Amino acid sequence: MSADIQLMKFHVVVRPKAAVLDPQGAAVQEAMQHLGMPEVRSVRIGKYLEIEVEGDEAEFEPRLHQLCRDLLSNPVIEDYELRNAEAQGA
Amino acid sequence: MSADIQLMKFHVVVRPKAAVLDPQGAAVQEAMQHLGMPEVRSVRIGKYLEIEVEGDEAEFEPRLHQLCRDLLSNPVIEDYELRNAEAQGA
Repeated sequence: MSADIQLMKFHVVVRPKAAVLDPQGAAVQEAMQHLGMPEVRSVRIGKYLEIEVEGDEAEFEPRLHQLCRDLLSNPVIEDYELRNAEAQGA
Repeated sequence: MSADIQLMKFHVVVRPKAAVLDPQGAAVQEAMQHLGMPEVRSVRIGKYLEIEVEGDEAEFEPRLHQLCRDLLSNPVIEDYELRNAEAQGA
């Protein structure tokens, strides 16, 4: 009923905390070094989610942050970053 | 020997092509809808890599793109995007 209803796009990046070992990243780093890029010094691997939500951002944003914490990341070992894709022009 | 030697940070996003089914994304979408966000219309899940490389960007960039194609993504079903992290201020 509101004129605010629209499709909004968000990007969520979930990555291992700096202090946490990332064995997948270490394996990829070694593979890159053997496949022609000996200059690689570090690789860390995380997840990238593109989420489309219909509605009023101010209303659902707190719930979206909560789901990022509870469902999309493991706060013990991972950090997440939630960005409005429209705002960053991506 | 060159003054150009430095540590450069890159972000690589690997995501399923638009025409490819993403069952992991569909599962997360359903979970989000059941956990308090019925407004979610679409979720697509990819990988996010943070890569640190030592050296001269102009020299290694073609090899980095080739490794993105050959090792980090499956070009049949995935697209990749390589960004210089310094350039975007992230």
